[in-house]
Amino acid sequence: MQPRLRWGIVATGNIAGVFARELALLPDHEVVAVGSRNLDRAKAFAQEWDIRRAYGSYTEVAEDPEVDVVYVATPHSDHLGTARHALESGKAVLCEKALTVNAAEARQLVDLARKHGRFLMEAMWMRCNPLHLRLRELLDAGTLGEPRSVHATLGFLADYDPDDRLFAPHLAGGSLLDVGIYPVSLAHHLLGAPDTVRATGTLAPTGVDASAGLLLGYAGGAVATLTGSLAGPLPNTAYVSGTEGWVEIPADFQAADRLVVHHPDKEPEEVTVDLLGVGYTYEAEEVARCLRAGLLESPLVPWADSIAVMEVLDAARAQVGVRYPNDAPGDGDSG
Amino acid sequence: MQPRLRWGIVATGNIAGVFARELALLPDHEVVAVGSRNLDRAKAFAQEWDIRRAYGSYTEVAEDPEVDVVYVATPHSDHLGTARHALESGKAVLCEKALTVNAAEARQLVDLARKHGRFLMEAMWMRCNPLHLRLRELLDAGTLGEPRSVHATLGFLADYDPDDRLFAPHLAGGSLLDVGIYPVSLAHHLLGAPDTVRATGTLAPTGVDASAGLLLGYAGGAVATLTGSLAGPLPNTAYVSGTEGWVEIPADFQAADRLVVHHPDKEPEEVTVDLLGVGYTYEAEEVARCLRAGLLESPLVPWADSIAVMEVLDAARAQVGVRYPNDAPGDGDSG
Repeated sequence: MQPRLRWGIVATGNIAGVFARELALLPDHEVVAVGSRNLDRAKAFAQEWDIRRAYGSYTEVAEDPEVDVVYVATPHSDHLGTARHALESGKAVLCEKALTVNAAEARQLVDLARKHGRFLMEAMWMRCNPLHLRLRELLDAGTLGEPRSVHATLGFLADYDPDDRLFAPHLAGGSLLDVGIYPVSLAHHLLGAPDTVRATGTLAPTGVDASAGLLLGYAGGAVATLTGSLAGPLPNTAYVSGTEGWVEIPADFQAADRLVVHHPDKEPEEVTVDLLGVGYTYEAEEVARCLRAGLLESPLVPWADSIAVMEVLDAARAQVGVRYPNDAPGDGDSG
Repeated sequence: MQPRLRWGIVATGNIAGVFARELALLPDHEVVAVGSRNLDRAKAFAQEWDIRRAYGSYTEVAEDPEVDVVYVATPHSDHLGTARHALESGKAVLCEKALTVNAAEARQLVDLARKHGRFLMEAMWMRCNPLHLRLRELLDAGTLGEPRSVHATLGFLADYDPDDRLFAPHLAGGSLLDVGIYPVSLAHHLLGAPDTVRATGTLAPTGVDASAGLLLGYAGGAVATLTGSLAGPLPNTAYVSGTEGWVEIPADFQAADRLVVHHPDKEPEEVTVDLLGVGYTYEAEEVARCLRAGLLESPLVPWADSIAVMEVLDAARAQVGVRYPNDAPGDGDSG
């Protein structure tokens, strides 16, 4: 067995709890510290997940000498600051998606990882899911002919609460960064960076996007139609079409263990994978694999992709009319 | 039994054959004449479908005193001219979709129907399909809460042939008028006329659109993401989402006899209808019903909707960069 990878978890929200539960499924991973701005919450989380040390700050986790890798699970608006401190403290970082609030911040963070020679990866777990890796292989093998389009939706009804991070502009809330990022990341995985980004959406009373539809155009002629929403449930399915066939990924596509390959006039073919946990296990294993290999970035979630996805989100957000306090003047005006 | 509605069919292509087969399923409908520019083809069609009179021109069908209603099944570029002559000859007209080549022509044709006091309907048979009527009822009853989005694709691989009407600019070929019109008509049926139209697509070597993706935005905040293609198969499914749930219409959505209503945390509910034929029967019956009621337009496929759909297609086509010889300068520059 490999030596255990020792995790420090920063923040104690929902996603942090699910990630801790998933890490517990992996024998060679261990959470050794957790930090919250509220020490009581850190202690409660530590007790629930049998973690030795609980801190009343994010910085202490990064400075804990036993921590190999810091998992940043704070709201988007805090990612850059917390991840920066962890990198400067010599830690590897797995940072929740969206990597940052905008592409300018994402580039800053990547530069920091490079400068400090530390591993950094966006926690875009979908990209580590074996089903999505299989999908990429199917496309590369020409199973669908030439890829032509991606269609995907992801949404749910979030009860409107101006204090909830989902709706708070200063926490970089909104549908694009929370759920829209999955369809955009899927399209990026399969079609690359788009040449044109068109978006339309609706605003919550706080001014963040409650929903957004995107039309991405590619120089080669492919197209992606994508929708994310906090204003109601969506089918949460994804389709990838090529000149010779199409793939259906049923709901919820970002966590799916099954896809169906369709060709005209042929029986559909099902491809399934056995998933361990809900799928966060694969990103944890990817982090471990990269660290053992001495890599600074993961080939499954490369820095360039995280930045490129952020650029699409910036452009879409600007068109929908959402600005965050973190945005510099002019951010997102391109695209 | 009602007196038989006597049809004259103009043109003898695929769609005319299917329509004749569907009419044969209806006891109170009869095809009394068929016309083609090629008399031999008209005769062959008449023999196949047991039609008394075959003409070597389109105009003779419209002038046949026994014909009550002319079904125009010529290429799009010919719709206006043939339908005009039929209206001027005192006939009712069922004209294949797309109603015309562009919105300006559609308005002309509607004006002619009004001026001559004759019935005119676009053969947008999907709108007469009892499943699609049921879908509209479900939405009106608030089953999905407030409608928020429509997602639909329709496409197939058409072997490229510059002489085929599908790829011929002078016949108003291209994906938008041939298949893209179905997703656009579906969105119009459920969400009304959009406030913004964004489109991206690819061109066939002849300059018509081989495929096109559309992003439609609505003042109320709803969004539609739609794709049509002649360059490869698409899933051909449609989804309609509201604040409280969504409906899935499986392939091929425009001809479906089944839909599934989804609500979060509830079992999906299936709604099925028994379809007579492939579904053209319902547009034929709608024509008969309207004529018996003395209507000039069908409430299921009103003139305003045919024009509004054409306006969306004009705007999309202009953005994709396709112009037809029939387009006047400036057509489609809006939107």
